[in-house]
Amino acid sequence: MRITHDGWEIIRYEENTPIRKQDTLAVELPLTIQLNGHEFATMVCSPSDLADLVCGFLASEGIIYTLDELQELSIDIERGFAYVTLNRTIDPKKYDQSKRFIGSCCGKSRQFYFKSDVRTAKTIRHALTITPSACYHLMNEMQAMSNIFHQTGNMHNAALCTVDKILFMRHDIGRHNALDKIYGSIIRNRLSVRDKVIVFSGRVSSEVLLKISKIGVGILLSKSAPTDLAIKLANDLGITVAGFIRGEKMNVYSHSKRIVND
Amino acid sequence: MRITHDGWEIIRYEENTPIRKQDTLAVELPLTIQLNGHEFATMVCSPSDLADLVCGFLASEGIIYTLDELQELSIDIERGFAYVTLNRTIDPKKYDQSKRFIGSCCGKSRQFYFKSDVRTAKTIRHALTITPSACYHLMNEMQAMSNIFHQTGNMHNAALCTVDKILFMRHDIGRHNALDKIYGSIIRNRLSVRDKVIVFSGRVSSEVLLKISKIGVGILLSKSAPTDLAIKLANDLGITVAGFIRGEKMNVYSHSKRIVND
Repeated sequence: MRITHDGWEIIRYEENTPIRKQDTLAVELPLTIQLNGHEFATMVCSPSDLADLVCGFLASEGIIYTLDELQELSIDIERGFAYVTLNRTIDPKKYDQSKRFIGSCCGKSRQFYFKSDVRTAKTIRHALTITPSACYHLMNEMQAMSNIFHQTGNMHNAALCTVDKILFMRHDIGRHNALDKIYGSIIRNRLSVRDKVIVFSGRVSSEVLLKISKIGVGILLSKSAPTDLAIKLANDLGITVAGFIRGEKMNVYSHSKRIVND
Repeated sequence: MRITHDGWEIIRYEENTPIRKQDTLAVELPLTIQLNGHEFATMVCSPSDLADLVCGFLASEGIIYTLDELQELSIDIERGFAYVTLNRTIDPKKYDQSKRFIGSCCGKSRQFYFKSDVRTAKTIRHALTITPSACYHLMNEMQAMSNIFHQTGNMHNAALCTVDKILFMRHDIGRHNALDKIYGSIIRNRLSVRDKVIVFSGRVSSEVLLKISKIGVGILLSKSAPTDLAIKLANDLGITVAGFIRGEKMNVYSHSKRIVND
Protein backbone atom coordinates (compact mmCIF):
# COMPACT_ATOMS: atom_id res chain seq x y z
CA MET A 1 0.00 0.00 0.00
CA ARG A 2 1.34 3.42 -0.92
CA ILE A 3 1.77 6.09 1.75
CA THR A 4 0.36 8.82 -0.49
CA HIS A 5 -2.94 9.01 -2.26
CA ASP A 6 -2.66 10.78 -5.61
CA GLY A 7 -5.37 12.31 -7.78
CA TRP A 8 -7.56 13.87 -5.09
CA GLU A 9 -9.95 16.43 -6.54
CA ILE A 10 -9.56 19.71 -4.69
CA ILE A 11 -10.38 23.34 -5.32
CA ARG A 12 -7.35 25.59 -5.29
CA TYR A 13 -8.01 29.25 -4.50
CA GLU A 14 -5.56 31.95 -5.48
CA GLU A 15 -7.06 35.16 -4.14
CA ASN A 16 -10.75 34.85 -5.07
CA THR A 17 -10.38 32.53 -8.04
CA PRO A 18 -11.24 28.84 -7.63
CA ILE A 19 -9.47 26.30 -9.87
CA ARG A 20 -10.21 22.57 -9.87
CA LYS A 21 -7.02 20.55 -9.59
CA GLN A 22 -5.61 17.27 -8.38
CA ASP A 23 -3.61 16.96 -5.19
CA THR A 24 -1.65 14.30 -3.31
CA LEU A 25 -2.62 13.48 0.29
CA ALA A 26 -0.89 11.36 2.92
CA VAL A 27 -2.66 8.03 3.49
CA GLU A 28 -3.72 7.48 7.10
CA LEU A 29 -4.39 3.87 8.14
CA PRO A 30 -5.94 2.83 11.46
CA LEU A 31 -4.06 -0.28 12.62
CA THR A 32 -5.28 -2.43 15.50
CA ILE A 33 -2.77 -4.73 17.19
CA GLN A 34 -4.16 -8.03 18.46
CA LEU A 35 -1.81 -9.52 21.03
CA ASN A 36 -2.32 -13.22 21.84
CA GLY A 37 -5.87 -12.92 20.53
CA HIS A 38 -6.83 -9.78 22.47
CA GLU A 39 -7.12 -6.24 21.17
CA PHE A 40 -4.16 -4.37 22.59
CA ALA A 41 -4.02 -0.95 20.91
CA THR A 42 -5.15 0.96 17.85
CA MET A 43 -2.99 3.58 16.21
CA VAL A 44 -3.24 5.58 13.02
CA CYS A 45 -0.18 5.40 10.80
CA SER A 46 1.26 5.57 7.29
CA PRO A 47 0.89 2.13 5.67
CA SER A 48 4.59 1.28 5.19
CA ASP A 49 7.00 -0.89 7.19
CA LEU A 50 4.13 -2.11 9.36
CA ALA A 51 6.00 -5.14 10.74
CA ASP A 52 8.71 -2.72 11.91
CA LEU A 53 6.04 -0.44 13.39
CA VAL A 54 4.34 -3.21 15.36
CA CYS A 55 7.62 -4.67 16.57
CA GLY A 56 8.94 -1.24 17.61
CA PHE A 57 5.69 -0.32 19.32
CA LEU A 58 5.67 -3.56 21.36
CA ALA A 59 9.29 -2.98 22.33
CA SER A 60 8.54 0.64 23.32
CA GLU A 61 5.70 -0.61 25.51
CA GLY A 62 7.99 -3.12 27.20
CA ILE A 63 6.14 -6.16 25.79
CA ILE A 64 9.14 -7.56 23.91
CA TYR A 65 12.88 -7.01 24.13
CA THR A 66 14.17 -9.25 21.32
CA LEU A 67 12.85 -10.91 18.20
CA ASP A 68 12.90 -14.31 19.92
CA GLU A 69 9.84 -13.38 21.99
CA LEU A 70 7.70 -13.11 18.85
CA GLN A 71 6.18 -16.40 17.76
CA GLU A 72 4.15 -14.92 14.93
CA LEU A 73 3.47 -11.54 13.38
CA SER A 74 1.13 -11.14 10.43
CA ILE A 75 -0.54 -8.07 9.00
CA ASP A 76 -3.88 -7.76 7.21
CA ILE A 77 -3.45 -4.32 5.72
CA GLU A 78 -6.89 -4.29 4.06
CA ARG A 79 -8.71 -4.80 7.36
CA GLY A 80 -6.13 -2.78 9.33
CA PHE A 81 -5.15 -5.51 11.78
CA ALA A 82 -1.78 -6.83 13.01
CA TYR A 83 -1.93 -10.26 14.64
CA VAL A 84 0.86 -10.92 17.12
CA THR A 85 1.48 -14.11 19.06
CA LEU A 86 4.12 -14.04 21.78
CA ASN A 87 5.98 -17.15 22.93
CA ARG A 88 4.40 -16.65 26.37
CA THR A 89 1.08 -15.69 27.88
CA ILE A 90 0.65 -12.15 29.21
CA ASP A 91 -1.62 -10.56 31.75
CA PRO A 92 -3.35 -7.64 29.96
CA LYS A 93 -3.85 -5.87 33.31
CA LYS A 94 -0.08 -5.62 33.70
CA TYR A 95 -0.01 -3.46 30.59
CA ASP A 96 -2.57 -0.91 31.62
CA GLN A 97 -1.01 2.13 30.00
CA SER A 98 -3.33 4.76 31.39
CA LYS A 99 -1.91 4.83 34.92
CA ARG A 100 0.82 7.19 35.95
CA PHE A 101 3.71 5.91 37.99
CA ILE A 102 5.23 8.04 40.69
CA GLY A 103 7.91 6.13 42.53
CA SER A 104 9.65 7.40 45.63
CA CYS A 105 12.83 5.77 44.33
CA CYS A 106 12.92 8.11 41.39
CA GLY A 107 14.83 11.34 40.91
CA LYS A 108 13.24 14.69 40.35
CA SER A 109 12.30 14.35 36.72
CA ARG A 110 11.94 10.57 36.86
CA GLN A 111 8.64 11.06 38.61
CA PHE A 112 7.25 11.83 35.18
CA TYR A 113 7.89 8.39 33.79
CA PHE A 114 5.01 6.12 33.01
CA LYS A 115 4.85 2.51 34.10
CA SER A 116 6.10 0.95 30.90
CA ASP A 117 8.87 3.55 30.72
CA VAL A 118 10.19 2.59 34.14
CA ARG A 119 10.66 -0.93 32.88
CA THR A 120 12.28 -0.04 29.59
CA ALA A 121 14.10 3.32 29.74
CA LYS A 122 17.85 2.82 29.90
CA THR A 123 20.64 5.22 30.81
CA ILE A 124 23.05 5.48 27.88
CA ARG A 125 26.76 5.16 28.63
CA HIS A 126 28.26 4.78 25.14
CA ALA A 127 31.29 6.97 24.49
CA LEU A 128 30.48 7.51 20.79
CA THR A 129 31.36 11.02 19.56
CA ILE A 130 30.41 13.00 16.45
CA THR A 131 31.71 16.21 14.85
CA PRO A 132 29.48 19.21 14.15
CA SER A 133 30.15 18.74 10.41
CA ALA A 134 28.90 15.15 10.60
CA CYS A 135 25.72 16.37 12.33
CA TYR A 136 25.06 18.91 9.54
CA HIS A 137 25.89 16.31 6.87
CA LEU A 138 23.49 13.66 8.25
CA MET A 139 20.63 16.14 8.59
CA ASN A 140 21.18 17.45 5.06
CA GLU A 141 21.30 13.91 3.69
CA MET A 142 18.04 12.99 5.42
CA GLN A 143 16.34 16.14 4.15
CA ALA A 144 17.52 15.48 0.60
CA MET A 145 16.45 11.82 0.71
CA SER A 146 13.06 12.63 2.21
CA ASN A 147 12.14 15.27 -0.34
CA ILE A 148 10.54 12.59 -2.49
CA PHE A 149 8.11 11.99 0.36
CA HIS A 150 7.42 15.64 0.95
CA GLN A 151 4.78 16.24 -1.70
CA THR A 152 2.09 15.97 0.93
CA GLY A 153 3.75 18.38 3.34
CA ASN A 154 3.10 16.31 6.42
CA MET A 155 5.40 13.33 6.77
CA HIS A 156 7.82 12.79 9.64
CA ASN A 157 11.18 11.21 8.90
CA ALA A 158 13.64 9.31 11.04
CA ALA A 159 16.97 7.76 10.03
CA LEU A 160 19.32 5.31 11.68
CA CYS A 161 22.90 6.36 10.97
CA THR A 162 26.52 5.80 11.80
CA VAL A 163 28.47 9.03 12.29
CA ASP A 164 29.37 8.79 8.58
CA LYS A 165 26.20 7.86 6.78
CA ILE A 166 22.49 7.03 6.80
CA LEU A 167 21.80 3.29 7.04
CA PHE A 168 18.02 3.48 6.48
CA MET A 169 15.07 5.82 6.84
CA ARG A 170 11.48 5.41 7.96
CA HIS A 171 8.49 7.70 7.30
CA ASP A 172 5.14 8.22 8.99
CA ILE A 173 2.42 10.82 9.50
CA GLY A 174 3.01 10.18 13.23
CA ARG A 175 6.23 11.32 14.89
CA HIS A 176 6.25 8.41 17.31
CA ASN A 177 5.48 5.90 14.57
CA ALA A 178 8.52 6.96 12.53
CA LEU A 179 10.71 6.18 15.55
CA ASP A 180 8.88 2.93 16.33
CA LYS A 181 9.57 1.83 12.74
CA ILE A 182 13.29 2.51 13.31
CA TYR A 183 13.18 0.60 16.61
CA GLY A 184 11.33 -2.32 15.02
CA SER A 185 13.85 -2.58 12.22
CA ILE A 186 16.72 -2.60 14.74
CA ILE A 187 15.04 -5.46 16.61
CA ARG A 188 14.06 -7.42 13.53
CA ASN A 189 17.59 -7.18 12.10
CA ARG A 190 19.32 -7.62 15.50
CA LEU A 191 21.42 -4.48 14.98
CA SER A 192 23.82 -3.07 17.55
CA VAL A 193 23.03 0.52 18.58
CA ARG A 194 26.32 1.38 20.33
CA ASP A 195 27.78 3.13 17.27
CA LYS A 196 24.49 4.58 16.00
CA VAL A 197 22.91 8.02 15.79
CA ILE A 198 19.25 8.84 15.12
CA VAL A 199 18.31 11.79 12.89
CA PHE A 200 14.74 13.00 13.27
CA SER A 201 12.60 15.63 11.60
CA GLY A 202 10.15 16.18 14.44
CA ARG A 203 9.86 18.01 17.72
CA VAL A 204 11.57 16.37 20.70
CA SER A 205 8.96 15.81 23.44
CA SER A 206 9.41 13.69 26.56
CA GLU A 207 7.79 10.77 24.74
CA VAL A 208 10.24 11.03 21.85
CA LEU A 209 13.17 11.25 24.25
CA LEU A 210 12.01 8.20 26.22
CA LYS A 211 11.70 6.27 22.98
CA ILE A 212 15.30 7.14 22.06
CA SER A 213 16.38 5.95 25.51
CA LYS A 214 14.51 2.66 25.07
CA ILE A 215 16.09 2.13 21.66
CA GLY A 216 19.41 2.70 23.42
CA VAL A 217 20.90 5.31 21.10
CA GLY A 218 23.01 8.03 22.73
CA ILE A 219 22.89 10.80 20.10
CA LEU A 220 19.67 12.36 18.75
CA LEU A 221 19.87 14.96 15.99
CA SER A 222 16.65 16.88 15.31
CA LYS A 223 15.58 19.54 12.87
CA SER A 224 13.14 20.91 15.47
CA ALA A 225 13.12 22.13 19.07
CA PRO A 226 12.91 20.09 22.28
CA THR A 227 10.67 20.71 25.30
CA ASP A 228 12.08 21.39 28.76
CA LEU A 229 10.94 18.00 30.09
CA ALA A 230 12.63 16.19 27.20
CA ILE A 231 15.92 17.90 28.03
CA LYS A 232 15.61 17.15 31.77
CA LEU A 233 15.13 13.49 30.85
CA ALA A 234 18.01 13.62 28.34
CA ASN A 235 20.29 14.96 31.08
CA ASP A 236 19.20 12.14 33.42
CA LEU A 237 19.38 9.39 30.81
CA GLY A 238 22.73 10.29 29.25
CA ILE A 239 21.41 11.29 25.82
CA THR A 240 22.98 14.00 23.65
CA VAL A 241 20.28 16.13 22.00
CA ALA A 242 21.16 18.56 19.20
CA GLY A 243 18.22 20.46 17.72
CA PHE A 244 17.37 23.19 15.23
CA ILE A 245 19.95 21.72 12.85
CA ARG A 246 19.62 23.90 9.78
CA GLY A 247 22.41 24.38 7.27
CA GLU A 248 25.63 24.63 9.28
CA LYS A 249 24.05 25.67 12.58
CA MET A 250 22.61 23.80 15.53
CA ASN A 251 21.86 23.97 19.24
CA VAL A 252 23.22 21.36 21.67
CA TYR A 253 20.90 20.94 24.66
CA SER A 254 22.37 18.06 26.68
CA HIS A 255 25.51 15.94 27.12
CA SER A 256 27.50 18.12 24.76
CA LYS A 257 30.63 16.06 25.49
CA ARG A 258 29.73 13.74 22.61
CA ILE A 259 30.00 16.63 20.09
CA VAL A 260 33.69 17.13 19.35
CA ASN A 261 35.68 18.89 16.67
CA ASP A 262 38.25 16.74 14.86
CA MET B 1 2.66 28.60 35.27
CA ARG B 2 4.29 29.93 32.10
CA ILE B 3 4.25 27.87 28.92
CA THR B 4 7.87 28.69 28.10
CA HIS B 5 10.97 28.15 30.19
CA ASP B 6 13.53 30.92 29.64
CA GLY B 7 17.21 30.97 30.43
CA TRP B 8 18.17 27.43 29.47
CA GLU B 9 21.92 27.06 29.04
CA ILE B 10 22.66 25.61 25.63
CA ILE B 11 25.63 25.42 23.31
CA ARG B 12 25.03 27.05 19.95
CA TYR B 13 27.21 25.81 17.09
CA GLU B 14 27.73 27.89 13.99
CA GLU B 15 29.89 25.73 11.72
CA ASN B 16 32.52 24.33 14.13
CA THR B 17 32.39 27.10 16.72
CA PRO B 18 30.58 26.47 20.01
CA ILE B 19 29.09 29.46 21.85
CA ARG B 20 27.36 29.24 25.23
CA LYS B 21 24.04 31.01 25.17
CA GLN B 22 20.59 31.05 26.75
CA ASP B 23 17.55 29.67 25.00
CA THR B 24 13.78 29.44 25.59
CA LEU B 25 12.11 26.01 25.62
CA ALA B 26 8.45 25.04 25.65
CA VAL B 27 7.32 23.74 29.04
CA GLU B 28 5.86 20.23 28.91
CA LEU B 29 3.62 19.22 31.84
CA PRO B 30 2.32 15.68 32.44
CA LEU B 31 -1.27 16.04 33.65
CA THR B 32 -3.22 13.13 35.11
CA ILE B 33 -7.02 13.37 35.19
CA GLN B 34 -8.72 11.74 38.17
CA LEU B 35 -12.38 11.13 37.40
CA ASN B 36 -14.65 10.41 40.39
CA GLY B 37 -11.55 9.37 42.33
CA HIS B 38 -10.08 7.03 39.68
CA GLU B 39 -7.14 7.71 37.38
CA PHE B 40 -8.64 8.18 33.96
CA ALA B 41 -5.87 9.40 31.63
CA THR B 42 -2.49 11.09 31.58
CA MET B 43 -1.49 13.53 28.90
CA VAL B 44 1.45 15.85 28.37
CA CYS B 45 0.53 19.44 27.68
CA SER B 46 1.48 23.10 27.88
CA PRO B 47 0.51 24.42 31.34
CA SER B 48 -2.08 27.01 30.31
CA ASP B 49 -5.89 26.95 30.26
CA LEU B 50 -5.89 23.59 32.02
CA ALA B 51 -9.55 23.76 33.09
CA ASP B 52 -10.43 24.25 29.42
CA LEU B 53 -8.16 21.36 28.47
CA VAL B 54 -9.69 18.93 30.97
CA CYS B 55 -13.24 19.98 30.09
CA GLY B 56 -12.59 19.71 26.35
CA PHE B 57 -10.84 16.35 26.72
CA LEU B 58 -13.75 14.90 28.72
CA ALA B 59 -16.21 16.21 26.13
CA SER B 60 -14.11 14.75 23.28
CA GLU B 61 -14.14 11.39 25.04
CA GLY B 62 -17.92 11.53 25.39
CA ILE B 63 -17.83 11.75 29.20
CA ILE B 64 -19.61 15.12 29.41
CA TYR B 65 -21.76 17.11 27.03
CA THR B 66 -22.49 20.26 29.05
CA LEU B 67 -21.06 22.07 32.02
CA ASP B 68 -23.95 20.93 34.20
CA GLU B 69 -22.52 17.42 34.36
CA LEU B 70 -19.42 18.68 36.19
CA GLN B 71 -19.85 18.85 39.94
CA GLU B 72 -16.28 19.87 40.64
CA LEU B 73 -13.06 20.52 38.73
CA SER B 74 -9.85 21.49 40.51
CA ILE B 75 -6.28 21.49 39.30
CA ASP B 76 -3.07 20.95 41.28
CA ILE B 77 -0.57 22.21 38.76
CA GLU B 78 2.46 21.49 40.97
CA ARG B 79 1.63 17.80 41.29
CA GLY B 80 0.21 17.62 37.75
CA PHE B 81 -3.25 16.39 38.70
CA ALA B 82 -6.76 17.45 37.68
CA TYR B 83 -9.52 16.25 40.01
CA VAL B 84 -12.93 15.93 38.37
CA THR B 85 -16.17 14.92 40.05
CA LEU B 86 -19.18 14.27 37.84
CA ASN B 87 -22.77 14.62 39.03
CA ARG B 88 -23.21 10.88 38.39
CA THR B 89 -21.30 7.64 38.81
CA ILE B 90 -19.59 6.14 35.77
CA ASP B 91 -18.50 2.65 34.87
CA PRO B 92 -14.79 2.89 33.95
CA LYS B 93 -15.12 -0.21 31.73
CA LYS B 94 -17.56 1.66 29.51
CA TYR B 95 -14.77 4.08 28.68
CA ASP B 96 -12.18 1.57 27.59
CA GLN B 97 -10.58 3.61 24.80
CA SER B 98 -8.27 0.96 23.44
CA LYS B 99 -10.89 -1.06 21.60
CA ARG B 100 -11.78 -0.43 18.02
CA PHE B 101 -15.39 -0.29 17.02
CA ILE B 102 -16.47 -1.79 13.70
CA GLY B 103 -20.20 -1.63 13.32
CA SER B 104 -22.09 -3.19 10.46
CA CYS B 105 -24.44 -0.23 10.58
CA CYS B 106 -21.65 2.12 9.58
CA GLY B 107 -20.74 3.48 6.18
CA LYS B 108 -17.48 2.87 4.41
CA SER B 109 -15.22 5.24 6.25
CA ARG B 110 -17.29 5.20 9.43
CA GLN B 111 -15.79 1.82 10.20
CA PHE B 112 -12.74 3.75 11.28
CA TYR B 113 -14.48 5.46 14.14
CA PHE B 114 -13.59 4.53 17.65
CA LYS B 115 -16.14 3.78 20.32
CA SER B 116 -16.24 7.20 21.92
CA ASP B 117 -16.35 8.79 18.47
CA VAL B 118 -19.47 6.85 17.53
CA ARG B 119 -21.19 8.35 20.53
CA THR B 120 -20.05 11.92 20.01
CA ALA B 121 -19.32 12.65 16.33
CA LYS B 122 -22.07 14.77 14.80
CA THR B 123 -22.87 15.53 11.17
CA ILE B 124 -22.75 19.28 10.65
CA ARG B 125 -25.67 20.90 8.83
CA HIS B 126 -25.09 24.63 9.47
CA ALA B 127 -25.40 26.79 6.37
CA LEU B 128 -22.70 29.26 7.48
CA THR B 129 -20.57 30.56 4.59
CA ILE B 130 -17.24 32.41 4.41
CA THR B 131 -15.38 34.28 1.67
CA PRO B 132 -11.83 33.34 0.59
CA SER B 133 -10.65 36.79 1.78
CA ALA B 134 -12.07 36.12 5.25
CA CYS B 135 -10.20 32.77 5.34
CA TYR B 136 -6.89 34.50 4.49
CA HIS B 137 -7.60 37.26 6.98
CA LEU B 138 -8.35 34.91 9.89
CA MET B 139 -5.24 32.81 9.24
CA ASN B 140 -3.03 35.91 8.98
CA GLU B 141 -4.53 37.30 12.21
CA MET B 142 -3.85 34.05 14.06
CA GLN B 143 -0.29 33.90 12.75
CA ALA B 144 0.36 37.49 13.79
CA MET B 145 -1.17 37.00 17.24
CA SER B 146 0.70 33.75 17.84
CA ASN B 147 4.12 35.12 16.95
CA ILE B 148 4.62 36.11 20.57
CA PHE B 149 4.38 32.40 21.39
CA HIS B 150 6.67 31.30 18.62
CA GLN B 151 10.02 31.84 20.29
CA THR B 152 10.25 28.14 21.03
CA GLY B 153 9.38 27.05 17.51
CA ASN B 154 7.05 24.26 18.56
CA MET B 155 3.67 25.50 19.71
CA HIS B 156 0.37 24.64 18.05
CA ASN B 157 -2.31 27.31 17.87
CA ALA B 158 -6.06 27.14 17.50
CA ALA B 159 -8.56 30.00 17.40
CA LEU B 160 -12.33 30.20 17.67
CA CYS B 161 -13.63 32.82 15.26
CA THR B 162 -16.67 34.30 13.63
CA VAL B 163 -16.26 34.88 9.89
CA ASP B 164 -15.10 38.40 10.76
CA LYS B 165 -12.73 38.06 13.68
CA ILE B 166 -10.87 35.90 16.20
CA LEU B 167 -12.76 35.51 19.48
CA PHE B 168 -9.97 33.75 21.41
CA MET B 169 -6.89 31.58 20.88
CA ARG B 170 -5.43 28.57 22.67
CA HIS B 171 -1.86 27.22 22.53
CA ASP B 172 -0.28 23.87 23.28
CA ILE B 173 2.70 21.69 22.38
CA GLY B 174 0.09 19.06 21.45
CA ARG B 175 -2.13 19.55 18.40
CA HIS B 176 -5.07 17.80 20.00
CA ASN B 177 -4.67 19.69 23.25
CA ALA B 178 -4.94 23.07 21.51
CA LEU B 179 -8.31 21.97 20.10
CA ASP B 180 -9.45 20.46 23.41
CA LYS B 181 -8.72 23.82 25.05
CA ILE B 182 -10.97 25.52 22.47
CA TYR B 183 -13.68 22.89 23.05
CA GLY B 184 -13.42 23.26 26.83
CA SER B 185 -13.75 27.01 26.62
CA ILE B 186 -16.86 26.68 24.42
CA ILE B 187 -18.42 24.34 27.00
CA ARG B 188 -17.39 26.37 30.04
CA ASN B 189 -18.77 29.57 28.49
CA ARG B 190 -21.83 27.87 26.94
CA LEU B 191 -21.06 29.36 23.52
CA SER B 192 -23.07 28.60 20.37
CA VAL B 193 -20.98 27.09 17.55
CA ARG B 194 -23.43 27.56 14.66
CA ASP B 195 -21.78 30.77 13.45
CA LYS B 196 -18.21 29.79 14.33
CA VAL B 197 -15.08 28.83 12.42
CA ILE B 198 -11.94 27.17 13.81
CA VAL B 199 -8.49 28.25 12.60
CA PHE B 200 -5.71 25.77 13.29
CA SER B 201 -1.95 25.70 12.75
CA GLY B 202 -1.52 21.92 12.65
CA ARG B 203 -1.92 19.01 10.31
CA VAL B 204 -5.49 17.70 9.88
CA SER B 205 -5.53 13.99 10.80
CA SER B 206 -8.63 11.85 11.33
CA GLU B 207 -8.40 12.55 15.05
CA VAL B 208 -8.35 16.31 14.49
CA LEU B 209 -11.28 16.08 12.10
CA LEU B 210 -13.33 13.99 14.53
CA LYS B 211 -12.63 16.53 17.25
CA ILE B 212 -13.95 19.34 15.02
CA SER B 213 -17.07 17.27 14.38
CA LYS B 214 -17.59 16.72 18.11
CA ILE B 215 -17.18 20.43 18.80
CA GLY B 216 -19.83 20.92 16.13
CA VAL B 217 -18.07 23.53 13.98
CA GLY B 218 -18.64 23.28 10.23
CA ILE B 219 -15.62 25.17 8.86
CA LEU B 220 -11.98 24.27 9.63
CA LEU B 221 -9.18 26.47 8.28
CA SER B 222 -5.68 25.02 8.57
CA LYS B 223 -2.21 26.19 7.71
CA SER B 224 -1.16 22.58 7.02
CA ALA B 225 -2.26 19.60 4.93
CA PRO B 226 -4.92 17.00 5.71
CA THR B 227 -4.68 13.22 5.39
CA ASP B 228 -6.91 11.20 3.07
CA LEU B 229 -8.85 9.66 5.97
CA ALA B 230 -9.53 13.09 7.48
CA ILE B 231 -11.04 14.26 4.20
CA LYS B 232 -13.16 11.11 3.79
CA LEU B 233 -14.54 11.77 7.27
CA ALA B 234 -15.02 15.49 6.50
CA ASN B 235 -17.07 14.55 3.43
CA ASP B 236 -19.21 12.17 5.53
CA LEU B 237 -19.62 14.55 8.45
CA GLY B 238 -20.42 17.72 6.54
CA ILE B 239 -17.28 19.67 7.43
CA THR B 240 -15.58 22.18 5.14
CA VAL B 241 -11.79 21.80 5.30
CA ALA B 242 -9.51 24.43 3.75
CA GLY B 243 -5.77 23.78 4.14
CA PHE B 244 -2.37 25.15 3.13
CA ILE B 245 -3.68 28.66 3.77
CA ARG B 246 -0.65 30.82 3.11
CA GLY B 247 -0.86 34.45 2.08
CA GLU B 248 -3.78 34.72 -0.36
CA LYS B 249 -3.83 31.07 -1.42
CA MET B 250 -5.50 27.95 -0.09
CA ASN B 251 -6.80 24.48 -1.00
CA VAL B 252 -10.40 23.48 -0.31
CA TYR B 253 -10.69 19.74 0.27
CA SER B 254 -14.34 19.13 1.22
CA HIS B 255 -17.80 20.76 1.23
CA SER B 256 -16.58 23.71 -0.82
CA LYS B 257 -20.14 25.06 -0.96
CA ARG B 258 -19.46 26.99 2.26
CA ILE B 259 -16.68 29.01 0.58
CA VAL B 260 -18.35 31.76 -1.45
CA ASN B 261 -17.24 35.00 -3.04
CA ASP B 262 -19.20 38.08 -2.05
